[in-house]
Amino acid sequence: VTAAAPLADLSRISLNQITAEQLSLAEAAAACARAGVPWIGPWRHKLTDGAESAARVVSEAGLRVSSLCRGGFFPTAPACRRERDADNRRAVGEAAALGTNVLVLVCGPAPDGDLSAARRMVLEGIERLLPLAAQRGVRLGIEPLHPMMIAERSVVVTLAQANDLAEHFDPAHVGVVIDAYHVWWDPDLERQLDRAAGRIVGYHVSDWLSPTPDVLAGRGMMGDGVIDLRGLRGRVEEAGYKGPIEVEVINPALAALSADELVARVCERCLSCV
Amino acid sequence: VTAAAPLADLSRISLNQITAEQLSLAEAAAACARAGVPWIGPWRHKLTDGAESAARVVSEAGLRVSSLCRGGFFPTAPACRRERDADNRRAVGEAAALGTNVLVLVCGPAPDGDLSAARRMVLEGIERLLPLAAQRGVRLGIEPLHPMMIAERSVVVTLAQANDLAEHFDPAHVGVVIDAYHVWWDPDLERQLDRAAGRIVGYHVSDWLSPTPDVLAGRGMMGDGVIDLRGLRGRVEEAGYKGPIEVEVINPALAALSADELVARVCERCLSCV
Repeated sequence: VTAAAPLADLSRISLNQITAEQLSLAEAAAACARAGVPWIGPWRHKLTDGAESAARVVSEAGLRVSSLCRGGFFPTAPACRRERDADNRRAVGEAAALGTNVLVLVCGPAPDGDLSAARRMVLEGIERLLPLAAQRGVRLGIEPLHPMMIAERSVVVTLAQANDLAEHFDPAHVGVVIDAYHVWWDPDLERQLDRAAGRIVGYHVSDWLSPTPDVLAGRGMMGDGVIDLRGLRGRVEEAGYKGPIEVEVINPALAALSADELVARVCERCLSCV
Repeated sequence: VTAAAPLADLSRISLNQITAEQLSLAEAAAACARAGVPWIGPWRHKLTDGAESAARVVSEAGLRVSSLCRGGFFPTAPACRRERDADNRRAVGEAAALGTNVLVLVCGPAPDGDLSAARRMVLEGIERLLPLAAQRGVRLGIEPLHPMMIAERSVVVTLAQANDLAEHFDPAHVGVVIDAYHVWWDPDLERQLDRAAGRIVGYHVSDWLSPTPDVLAGRGMMGDGVIDLRGLRGRVEEAGYKGPIEVEVINPALAALSADELVARVCERCLSCV
C-alpha cells in the first residue's frame, strides 16, 4: 500500500458544520464559497428555518450538501421509540430536501447499560427507517464512533460492527461512514476497510491530539495530531470511496478564529496533510 | 450466560497499588492487612528499596503479590532498544523476587506514529524477553488498553490483538490480562474471552464514569460507573480464570481518602458490585 498523493485541489473538500459551530449555516456557506470549498455538511440543529430554506441558502452560495448529520440514537426506552422513529423519518426528509443522498447515523448509547440489547435496537431501528430512506433516495451511513464515546454517543464503536450491521441491508440503501478520528486506532482497520468496499458513503477527517484534552470535544485540526491521514485516505480510496471529504473538527477552541480564518486553515491543512 | 454470584468474601481481592498512589508499599500493604485483603499488586516505582526488600514488606504484612506492573513499552527507536530490553529483564527478575508469577505488560505507544511497525516491535520484544521469563517462571501478561490510550500508552488496544500476540507463544509463558475498563466496550468481547480461555493471567476492575473526566486518570470506583462488572466477571470465570481480582482505579481524587477509608471502600464495592 502506498500513501495517496496529496489532494490536487479543493474539489472534494466539505466543511462539516460542527467545525464552525459558532456560525449559522448561511455564514458557514458564505465562508466556504469565498474560499472555494464546494461542499458543506450541515447538522440538523443548524436548519433553523427548515430544510427547504437551508437548501436555498446552500444552493445560492453555489455549494452542495455532502451529507446531513445526523439521524440515529436508536436505543431507547420503549415509551420513547415512536418519537425517536418520527424524528429519524424527519431527518430522512430533510436530507432529501437538502439534495444530499447521505444521512449520517450516530447510533446512540444504551439507555440502561445493556450493550447487547442496545445493539439489537440499532439494527431494528435501521430496519424500520429503511423503507422511507429507500423511497426518498437517501443512503443511511452507519458511523462507528471511537470506543471512548460509548457511554454518551454510540454503542457502535468499530468498523467491524458497522459492517456487520450494514451487511443486513442492500448497499444501495445502507452504508458506513469512515471518520479517521473514530477508527484510526483499530488493529483490524485494513481488513474492515476492504470489507466495506462499495458501502463507504462518507469520509470524515480531523486529527488525534496527544494528549487528548477532552473525550468528546478534544479533536485536532489535521496535521496537529498523530493520525497518518494521507495513508488512511489512500486506504479509503482503495476501498472505492472517491466522494467528498468532510472536515469535522469538534473543538471549542476553533471558535476563536473568524469564519474566513477557519476555512482558510481547513483548506491549507487538507492540501498539506490529508 | 448468567451473571456471576456476588463474591462470598475477600479471598480473591487484590489492591493494585496505583489505586493508592499516594501510599508507600508498606503503608498500602498494612492497610490491606488490617482490612483482610490478602493480595497486593505493586508497581515497579514503589519498589524503592529493591524487590527483595519489597517482598519482605509484603510477606511480613501477611500478603501475597498478585502481579507486578509493569513491563513492556516495546516500540522504541533502535538506539533505545537495548536499554528497554534490559529494563524489561530487570522487571522479570523483580516479579520473581516478589514471588508472583505474573508480569503485566503495557505494550507502549508508537515512537513515530507508525502503528504497524510499533505492533511488530511488540511481538519482537516479547520474543526477546520470553527465554528469561520462562526460566524464572514468570508469565508475561499482555494487557490490551482502551483505544483512547493508544497515543501515550499502548498500540495493543483490543483483546483480539492481545490474543493474536499471545498465540505466538506457549500459554505457560505468555497470557493476557483482562481489565474491565479497557475492554468492556468491545462488541467482540465475548468471542475473544472464549478464545483467551487458558491464557488469562489476571483480571483488573474499576468502572467507566460517564462522562469520563480524563483520558488517562478518570476511572471510577466499581459501582460509580456503567460497566456490568458482575456480568463481565462471570464471563472471565467461564473462560477459566479464578485468580486474584486486582482493583486498579486510576483517579487522583482517591488520594483524599485515608488508607483505611480507601481500602474499606474497595472491599465494600468488590462485594456489592464486582
